Amino acid sequence: MERFLALDIGGTKIAVGRFTKDGVLEEEISFPTIPERGYKEIMKEIIEKLASIKTEDTIALGVGCAGPLDRVEGVIFSPPNLPGWDKAPIKVDLQKDLNIPVFIDNDANAACLGEYYFGAGKGCRDMVYITVSTGIGGGIMVDGKILHGRRDSAGEVGHQTILPDGPLCNCGNRGCLEAISSGTALAKRAKEVILSGEETILRDMSEEEEISAKLVREAMLKGDRSAKRIWDEAMEYLGIGVGNIITILSPERVIIGGSIGLSGKDVIEKIKEVVAKRVFLVPVDMIEIIPAKLGDKVGLYGAFSVALHERDL
Amino acid sequence: MERFLALDIGGTKIAVGRFTKDGVLEEEISFPTIPERGYKEIMKEIIEKLASIKTEDTIALGVGCAGPLDRVEGVIFSPPNLPGWDKAPIKVDLQKDLNIPVFIDNDANAACLGEYYFGAGKGCRDMVYITVSTGIGGGIMVDGKILHGRRDSAGEVGHQTILPDGPLCNCGNRGCLEAISSGTALAKRAKEVILSGEETILRDMSEEEEISAKLVREAMLKGDRSAKRIWDEAMEYLGIGVGNIITILSPERVIIGGSIGLSGKDVIEKIKEVVAKRVFLVPVDMIEIIPAKLGDKVGLYGAFSVALHERDL
Repeated sequence: MERFLALDIGGTKIAVGRFTKDGVLEEEISFPTIPERGYKEIMKEIIEKLASIKTEDTIALGVGCAGPLDRVEGVIFSPPNLPGWDKAPIKVDLQKDLNIPVFIDNDANAACLGEYYFGAGKGCRDMVYITVSTGIGGGIMVDGKILHGRRDSAGEVGHQTILPDGPLCNCGNRGCLEAISSGTALAKRAKEVILSGEETILRDMSEEEEISAKLVREAMLKGDRSAKRIWDEAMEYLGIGVGNIITILSPERVIIGGSIGLSGKDVIEKIKEVVAKRVFLVPVDMIEIIPAKLGDKVGLYGAFSVALHERDL
Repeated sequence: MERFLALDIGGTKIAVGRFTKDGVLEEEISFPTIPERGYKEIMKEIIEKLASIKTEDTIALGVGCAGPLDRVEGVIFSPPNLPGWDKAPIKVDLQKDLNIPVFIDNDANAACLGEYYFGAGKGCRDMVYITVSTGIGGGIMVDGKILHGRRDSAGEVGHQTILPDGPLCNCGNRGCLEAISSGTALAKRAKEVILSGEETILRDMSEEEEISAKLVREAMLKGDRSAKRIWDEAMEYLGIGVGNIITILSPERVIIGGSIGLSGKDVIEKIKEVVAKRVFLVPVDMIEIIPAKLGDKVGLYGAFSVALHERDL
């Protein structure tokens, strides 16, 4: 039976796997990225690991990686989490050593495809996948195909402006959804609140553990008012951002993933509440807003699905 | 040669026309809508006029009309500017009397198609048409096809929230782009400024002519500071809204139409300026932002193009 290799490149962890064409993950290896090693060193380990699980009947390799990148050329342009990967010719390098066709896409599009073939997007050809984690990213599927846009840059749902005078975003803009509702934004708000002198258990908690969105959520679940305010505000804006996507695209389904997106049922409930309150010109009762299904396997399934998708087109 | 009929239904004016398949507008009649007459009376006049210009070789009728509507069933659901048109079975009624296939779409999608076939969208299969007039609407084209979404509701670019605590919008939401940057919003702001007692020539002007976006623009061009502030603010937000569309869709081209969109070169210059200032993750230098070309013929060309497009699919 035909098999596929998959490669999921993250800033912290890299995973490789081998799938049957029906989506059975037969083998899997993961190892720390250690970005300081630089492109050549990391690629050497990637290729070794891929070669070690490649079988005779492996027909293609799918890759998911942070963008910006050029999908057709297979070149990566300095993602923030992979310093030194500037114009990194990943496709050519992988193809040369593994001798099979290589298909690449950015991680959000890969995740969207993974959910489409194997997760919460099954059977749905018009959908948006939104990951809410350290950052906020997205993949848009129209009529069963990923919408790539100019230089594969479509789907940057986290960088819509929803608060024009809001906080500065890493991208350079002000008031991006990502600057308000991402894990990074939640942690930043928590730090501000602690410094403000407000009474909150976040202060004590921050002495034992680095401040993060997870910590804010824990404090909120323990009944801390400041944490609850920080969390609720961020989720209110997340709902507005999702509402804007729905207003513009009117998809069949919106799939919410990422560590914050999947941190509890309340997140999706809140998104639905805000959407119902703000979106009137699109029939929201016809649009499903549901959690992603692939969990921490979304990276590998996504990478595999990039190769599947190219064969489908 | 094959010919097409076109029908553009607006709240103030209705136009019918006959086109050759190459896009020559051979005949054209327009008449006031007078919505108070109600659906039956208006349809009677529409059918009479269409019948009067229909030739033997006319093979289809294209219709552009305000939504919400069901494109496949050809039914219109109470557009604000056509009171009483509730579940109006326009497609069936037209087909019965004219005996040719009838294709219908909402006015923004029709305009998008008109620009695609005959105007500023020629040769571009991934684009967004945005009309900035009394309201703000849009049509999205992906890979040469209109993105319709659930119940033909995609492309509502004017109802993205860009100022969550902003002014109430007619749709029921707060801070929609339309509630800030449309002609209606500009006129409303001008009235507020006049009432505030601020020194402005808008006050005198408003005694001779009803306050409108056109009046605000005239006052601005005469050097009135209040009018300039009102106008600039609205255009700044318009730029943010267009930037969000670009961030999400990363199209090849954005076409700006409508009486405000086309009121002067400064409008598109301002949009470009804001986009350059706020959009970083999409290569904006690869995206054209240009004015619509069809002018006041966009309604008829749009309606005709709806029929052309259906034949193309």
